[in-house]
Amino acid sequence: MRALFDRAIENRYSRNVPNKGDLLYEGKAKRLFHTDQEAVLWVEYMDQATAFNGEKKDLIGGKGNLNNKISSLIFQWLTSQGIPNHLIETLSDSEQLVRQVQIVPLEVVVRNVAAGSISQRLGIPEGRRLPRTVIELYYKDDALGDPLINDDHIAMLDLASPEELAQIREQALQVNHSLIELFGEVGIQLVDFKLEFGRDTQGHILLSDEVSPDTCRLWDAQTGEHLDKDVYRRDLGDLVPVYEKVYARLKEKLGQ
Amino acid sequence: MRALFDRAIENRYSRNVPNKGDLLYEGKAKRLFHTDQEAVLWVEYMDQATAFNGEKKDLIGGKGNLNNKISSLIFQWLTSQGIPNHLIETLSDSEQLVRQVQIVPLEVVVRNVAAGSISQRLGIPEGRRLPRTVIELYYKDDALGDPLINDDHIAMLDLASPEELAQIREQALQVNHSLIELFGEVGIQLVDFKLEFGRDTQGHILLSDEVSPDTCRLWDAQTGEHLDKDVYRRDLGDLVPVYEKVYARLKEKLGQ
Repeated sequence: MRALFDRAIENRYSRNVPNKGDLLYEGKAKRLFHTDQEAVLWVEYMDQATAFNGEKKDLIGGKGNLNNKISSLIFQWLTSQGIPNHLIETLSDSEQLVRQVQIVPLEVVVRNVAAGSISQRLGIPEGRRLPRTVIELYYKDDALGDPLINDDHIAMLDLASPEELAQIREQALQVNHSLIELFGEVGIQLVDFKLEFGRDTQGHILLSDEVSPDTCRLWDAQTGEHLDKDVYRRDLGDLVPVYEKVYARLKEKLGQ
Repeated sequence: MRALFDRAIENRYSRNVPNKGDLLYEGKAKRLFHTDQEAVLWVEYMDQATAFNGEKKDLIGGKGNLNNKISSLIFQWLTSQGIPNHLIETLSDSEQLVRQVQIVPLEVVVRNVAAGSISQRLGIPEGRRLPRTVIELYYKDDALGDPLINDDHIAMLDLASPEELAQIREQALQVNHSLIELFGEVGIQLVDFKLEFGRDTQGHILLSDEVSPDTCRLWDAQTGEHLDKDVYRRDLGDLVPVYEKVYARLKEKLGQ
């Protein structure tokens, strides 16, 4: 961890890192700041954990750093696999530089194995492998509780064009393919995950937000142990040691 | 009403009406019987009213007859407009002969104006005209509470093929077009409605079930008065006189 942080600090002084500007947006787990460089944002990962649309909320020291470092490793891996995304550079244990995008207000959920809401919605026992990958689109709206919606709702609400939706689905499947491979190599089953996409300054669809144990369901391939935010949602124990495991395995595999 | 019934009785003796056989299925509002003719079913409309997935339940004398007569008029109208459906013949005030189909387990909801669940799901005030027609597909499963699903769920659960889904959507839009015209001519706004489709013996998608004030939201175009099952769901008064209004207007318009 120390090494990553030291290298980041070094980078900041040796390279042309923009200066942090005003707060643009504070979410549940991250703060986004402007920088003095156009279309570049400064992200701070926070230690706040929330679940059930904010009904459960806690500060968990170390979570922000772990998510930042895990998401950084994963986004770098996705870049190396030809999947563009908003990450420019990891600045420190809790900070990133990212490309500014206009977020498409959809939570794009990709499911390989039944767990959580799909088990409840469709009566499929948790842990059953789905006969095919399922993509679900949820309307990002806290007041409405992020409801599941379909393509007609998206068209009616003008959330994304049909062409953008097709690109989002295609990229989500590519990410799934790539992450199944990555996690598989470190003994983790990728059950499901949530992505967010944005439009960059040219209007292209770009993978954004984060990919971390906060946004994925990750089960140990041998033991079935939960290595993700379900540990917090379901009160299964301490979250930090679990996220540390995920980080350690990815770090070893990706050689950083 | 008498006339319709008398004519039906006369038909039964003068024409080749099949004989009623064993009970095949009892739903919330209808009973389906086999007949001695292949792929022909005998339907009895019942007076039971239910709402909220069966949580509210009452017997309302006369409702079954009215739904049978209204749905018969509407299905005959749809046939005359080139939209095939399962209705063969109206046998009496409470009975029909229909083609047997294998029901596709989807509730196909078509919405022109926001009301009911879409207002809650998406925060759109009831009564607002939607910028475009919206089709929603619900998984017909009482135990699960008929959840909203998307095309990936339908493919995963193997409920209908992509080609069947395309046909269902196309036919649902044709029905919408035709019903907006019919109801518009009798001073009724077609807010939304639910359809069910089946596969006939040749495997073709065929409009089935019923189209009645039980399955549509119908508002008086002048006064906004509810002329549908919301009168029962929302305890707005007596349901039978309201359904009588809808029947009387359609009967006058369609000259029966």
